[in-house]
Amino acid sequence: MKLPQTPLRFLERTARLYRDKVGIVCRDHRETYGAYQGRVYQFARAMMELGVRKGDRVAYLGMNCHRLLEAYYGVLPIGAILLPLNIRLSPSEIAFILNDAAPKVLVVGKELVAVAEAVRHQVPVSSYVLADEDAPLPPGWQRFDPLLARQSADPIEAWDVDEDDVAEIFYTSGTTGRPKGAMLTHRALYTHALQALVTLQLTDADVQIVGTVPLFHVNAWGSPHFLVAVGATQVVVPRFDPEIFARAVQEHRATVALMVPTMLNALLNWPGRKAYDLSSLRTLVLGGAPAPYALVEAARREIGCKTMVGYGLTETTPVLTVAVLKGTLADRPQEEKDRRMAMTGLPTVGVELRVVREDGTEVRSDGQEVGEIVVRGDSVMKGYWNRPEETEEAFRGGWFHTGDMAVVDAEGYVQIVDRKKDIIISGGENISSVEVENCIYSHPAVLECAVIAATDPHWGEVPKALVVPKPGQTVTPEELSAYCRDRIAHFKVPRHWVILDRELPKTGTGKVMKAELRKLYGGGQAAATPA
Amino acid sequence: MKLPQTPLRFLERTARLYRDKVGIVCRDHRETYGAYQGRVYQFARAMMELGVRKGDRVAYLGMNCHRLLEAYYGVLPIGAILLPLNIRLSPSEIAFILNDAAPKVLVVGKELVAVAEAVRHQVPVSSYVLADEDAPLPPGWQRFDPLLARQSADPIEAWDVDEDDVAEIFYTSGTTGRPKGAMLTHRALYTHALQALVTLQLTDADVQIVGTVPLFHVNAWGSPHFLVAVGATQVVVPRFDPEIFARAVQEHRATVALMVPTMLNALLNWPGRKAYDLSSLRTLVLGGAPAPYALVEAARREIGCKTMVGYGLTETTPVLTVAVLKGTLADRPQEEKDRRMAMTGLPTVGVELRVVREDGTEVRSDGQEVGEIVVRGDSVMKGYWNRPEETEEAFRGGWFHTGDMAVVDAEGYVQIVDRKKDIIISGGENISSVEVENCIYSHPAVLECAVIAATDPHWGEVPKALVVPKPGQTVTPEELSAYCRDRIAHFKVPRHWVILDRELPKTGTGKVMKAELRKLYGGGQAAATPA
Repeated sequence: MKLPQTPLRFLERTARLYRDKVGIVCRDHRETYGAYQGRVYQFARAMMELGVRKGDRVAYLGMNCHRLLEAYYGVLPIGAILLPLNIRLSPSEIAFILNDAAPKVLVVGKELVAVAEAVRHQVPVSSYVLADEDAPLPPGWQRFDPLLARQSADPIEAWDVDEDDVAEIFYTSGTTGRPKGAMLTHRALYTHALQALVTLQLTDADVQIVGTVPLFHVNAWGSPHFLVAVGATQVVVPRFDPEIFARAVQEHRATVALMVPTMLNALLNWPGRKAYDLSSLRTLVLGGAPAPYALVEAARREIGCKTMVGYGLTETTPVLTVAVLKGTLADRPQEEKDRRMAMTGLPTVGVELRVVREDGTEVRSDGQEVGEIVVRGDSVMKGYWNRPEETEEAFRGGWFHTGDMAVVDAEGYVQIVDRKKDIIISGGENISSVEVENCIYSHPAVLECAVIAATDPHWGEVPKALVVPKPGQTVTPEELSAYCRDRIAHFKVPRHWVILDRELPKTGTGKVMKAELRKLYGGGQAAATPA
Repeated sequence: MKLPQTPLRFLERTARLYRDKVGIVCRDHRETYGAYQGRVYQFARAMMELGVRKGDRVAYLGMNCHRLLEAYYGVLPIGAILLPLNIRLSPSEIAFILNDAAPKVLVVGKELVAVAEAVRHQVPVSSYVLADEDAPLPPGWQRFDPLLARQSADPIEAWDVDEDDVAEIFYTSGTTGRPKGAMLTHRALYTHALQALVTLQLTDADVQIVGTVPLFHVNAWGSPHFLVAVGATQVVVPRFDPEIFARAVQEHRATVALMVPTMLNALLNWPGRKAYDLSSLRTLVLGGAPAPYALVEAARREIGCKTMVGYGLTETTPVLTVAVLKGTLADRPQEEKDRRMAMTGLPTVGVELRVVREDGTEVRSDGQEVGEIVVRGDSVMKGYWNRPEETEEAFRGGWFHTGDMAVVDAEGYVQIVDRKKDIIISGGENISSVEVENCIYSHPAVLECAVIAATDPHWGEVPKALVVPKPGQTVTPEELSAYCRDRIAHFKVPRHWVILDRELPKTGTGKVMKAELRKLYGGGQAAATPA
């Protein structure tokens, strides 16, 4: 028989089996799964009261909060679509997205009221809802809790849902181009949760710290769906901070958390860590950036927990790969195992992944040849909101093109080497800018560097390095060039060097803005050195 | 994006990631997953050579064998349907099924050639294939391996598959009525595998003994799909036997196996067991019949492995529930935990289960009120082959009616008390014949017993017991009646007793034929005793 694949089915099962279990902890607020189900249906009815109908968007702009978890499920029974917004975006970016997606309702956390008010007259939102109780209510706004309290908490029996309906839209931040809204269907959210559970092996006994990776980041990697599916406990923290995190782990005996590598690094290097009992932690899922393998090893040694490195995109709900160790490699030396477990990983069950050349054929599985990662699967988005051409381009040939460049080894492990737009193509060879940067970074006098493509009449492109020395130190192009030639293939050594006396331009989240650098320095006009 | 949910996707992923790993061991035959994929596509092309087209059926009548595993996947790329037959059926039952399902091809193991030849002139099969190499080939038959060997082993790129197409048909044996073919779709097989993996938590490091539960029993509970999905190793045994099993576990360091409770009981009571190293066993999945909780405890004590008791039906692909211990019950006494883990269990993620009264409303969650188990989910069959009326009846109200009568407790654990047709309804009260039988069985002089409904002018029905004493012992209705009155509610104590001097009639698989007993003894005409 055929039932719609929708996360609502997870909620119904868990609300039955774990009705009296505290499923969500958020500061002083504790919500059983029974109460959560009630709030979800109250939210659905509240949205209907505000005129939201099937296919309409509801946007949420706020810090991590149980109310966002309620909104995730609350839009679903009436066939509406949630649009969680990145709170770090500028008012103009938020105005762009609100005009692009045109939500009927905007739910706003108290910290973001000023931003919402700033864009109010430029956007087509008809209702504003303040998520918090302890902040003044702007004129014409409604307050979240009283709005819900006047609704019935009874389940809505007849869900207005087809599994191929869009349930959520997330705008990809990107460092170039205008933001695009990735449309995720009920079926994508449902199957992604099952796929993630097959790999992560979570149960109702797990307690996850939620919000280390902000909840607006494609649901903090899908956790509101897979945690509800098994009836695990969600402990919401406002943001990642080593002390907030350690205190929450100790207090709630947390077993699992999601982190970007810099968070784990910060936790490991935080002097206060040893005052907290982190022994309940079983698994740290690392994603969002390549994980140095020293981190995997340090997490095991220092915290006594395993790490699972993963990779995914907003467009893929998100998890595509996890670097689990294959059973067939169990007898290998620990260092090799750690190295594998720090890679981009293996496609999860349900995900089809290829690393392909420009012509669509697969690269050799030699860990050397670089190609683009393309994927297919139930958890891949339906397309970009209102962008038929960009959707078609992304899905050319029936595969979603990730823009991530990678190698794949004989065991099938994928390793991302660069973003596609950051790859340097020199005489037909792909050069990973990340690999060259890693080499330059290992020089003791280097504080920051970025490697970009410079145009070259003979090679097409050649690598060009922009280097910021550490304060009080000097370094010359000749010295760096010789240093690189000892360590990486000669064709990868930058032909051009620029020594800068100020830090590299970065995005709000700390990513170097390579597109900006390419504009400023991509012409190949700086002094060349022999390579 | 939308890809068809089909087990073929499991095979493709595993053939890529585990190409050189031995995935299937069957006697002396060892097959890597790469070789398995090749044989699967050779089977598909062989079937096309024999005229099989989309929607056609291919039947398989044989003992456990890697060739059946190849057939499971081999019919799929061409959109054909596999029909695995129970080798214990009589020739007339097999003839009935072959006429009902009308397969184009019948693949036959050497032990079943005589049966196939016996029915050959009564059935519309056009091609016969002998699965084995070491047996004479009947005239007009083809042999399996040479038939495959002349086909290309390359993957067929364009699968002729819609996820809602039927992939397999299993005839339910039942103890009454004519057999019916349960139609399982690609989507049902795919989602069942994911659901089972979420609960069973298997990985590529697992080694399962396959064939303890015969492979024709709804794929031995789905294992060819969930084991291939994660790239685990399948060790095929010809049948369950304690020594064959123990030897296979020791030789292959098996971690998991499926069993019916009587198999585990036989293994535990087999004197030769301690000569084998069974320490690799991590999980025994028990199903097919209620598991006494002493068994759960004994498995842990004697073999050092956990048991997972499950419940399912041919019509549900099959797993519906598994008796996992809820995290919220971790602090309960061990005996209570063991008791929970011997129950029918909790619905797995993806399964909706209710225990309902005749009017469709849910019974109280008090562990007392008996109702029928009804279910919904992706893994529930599409319907019965060529039986629109029986399909409609089974799915009335949008739920599949299992015919199993159960109670549900405050924690949501389900416990089957009887088959619906074996329930006795006395003055509006449901009486579980199993519960009354368990009471009678505990009397030291009783060898066998069965409790059935006898018609009664006042109560509608009353319980009637048929009892076989142990050799050389006698027992009277008065004595048994008094014994029961001390132990169960008075309305459950049989009003009528029949003491028999021969064993109860049983099916080929050892189930007591209650329908037969009802015909012989259901009139209430035997001597009544005061209750």
